[in-house]
Amino acid sequence: MPLVRIDIKKNPDATFAQKLGQVVYASMKQAINVPDKDNFQVLTEHDDNHFVYDPDYLGIQRTDGVVFIQITLNEGRSTEQKKLLYQTIAEGLNEEAGVRLEDVFISLVEVKKENWSFGSGLAQYAN
Amino acid sequence: MPLVRIDIKKNPDATFAQKLGQVVYASMKQAINVPDKDNFQVLTEHDDNHFVYDPDYLGIQRTDGVVFIQITLNEGRSTEQKKLLYQTIAEGLNEEAGVRLEDVFISLVEVKKENWSFGSGLAQYAN
Amino acid sequence: MPLVRIDIKKNPDATFAQKLGQVVYASMKQAINVPDKDNFQVLTEHDDNHFVYDPDYLGIQRTDGVVFIQITLNEGRSTEQKKLLYQTIAEGLNEEAGVRLEDVFISLVEVKKENWSFGSGLAQYAN
Repeated sequence: MPLVRIDIKKNPDATFAQKLGQVVYASMKQAINVPDKDNFQVLTEHDDNHFVYDPDYLGIQRTDGVVFIQITLNEGRSTEQKKLLYQTIAEGLNEEAGVRLEDVFISLVEVKKENWSFGSGLAQYAN
Repeated sequence: MPLVRIDIKKNPDATFAQKLGQVVYASMKQAINVPDKDNFQVLTEHDDNHFVYDPDYLGIQRTDGVVFIQITLNEGRSTEQKKLLYQTIAEGLNEEAGVRLEDVFISLVEVKKENWSFGSGLAQYAN
Repeated sequence: MPLVRIDIKKNPDATFAQKLGQVVYASMKQAINVPDKDNFQVLTEHDDNHFVYDPDYLGIQRTDGVVFIQITLNEGRSTEQKKLLYQTIAEGLNEEAGVRLEDVFISLVEVKKENWSFGSGLAQYAN
């Protein structure tokens, strides 16, 4: 169900974005019970002219290694669950992909469960 | 009003994505009464390293022909209307563009009607 | 907090999209009190086959210079504030970047304040 969009600056490793996506997926399974195999992602790399971040908003020091992660997912997770998700993603990206903790930017967009079709023209999560 | 984002794997036909978009637009008009001419879309093609889908989440067999469709639209459609939209899009993409029914992935993001400006700095849908 | 996505047709000036983004950021600070330095944007240019707009929906005459701006931001702004934001963005893009007023298309997606992590795996806006 989550649809994940990850945006980063161009990385010399063509598989780097995918590595980030794998960590995000594993973190969602671990922290907020996203089902196994529920993995759908769009990964995009940008040149310097098309990717904008502030290097110290809220006193957090960001670098060109910043990773924007926007996740569209079902509503209903508690603030505690969201906090655990942020921590799990940031620590995972740090440990598995060498991303600085300060460089992990996450935005959640919540939707109703009937707002998804996973194929065949059906609303698999609707009652 | 709907803003449609379609993401697919690179297709040899440069107009293929546009064809998909035309079907999505026609389906929205038919299934959920989107007004005539209300057609705004961003279409993006991705290489293998930047497009991730599970090949059988929920038992639905997906291929590299999978189409992600994310539609931002006004809130208020019923679950029945959403179901009709999913079915209309999937069948339309299948008939008009040869997309497998299982390869149609749809995500709806609902917003308030005052959340749009269609030009000239005005909120055309606000009271 | 706002995550801004700007989509335009390919522009010969590689810094044009960034110029648009600067105006959008300044407009958010001016019109809806977005904090200083709260500036995160993804800018994308598209060829003719991957960018679709209607040239006169609602009687507004649009050209290839149309600019799609989708802003994910915290919920709670009034309709009056949103109207002021639309006007400020459109006039700013017109004055600073030569965009026609009719070519400014804006979509807002509102989320809860605990739906953001600005780095370090924390939910900086959550209570």
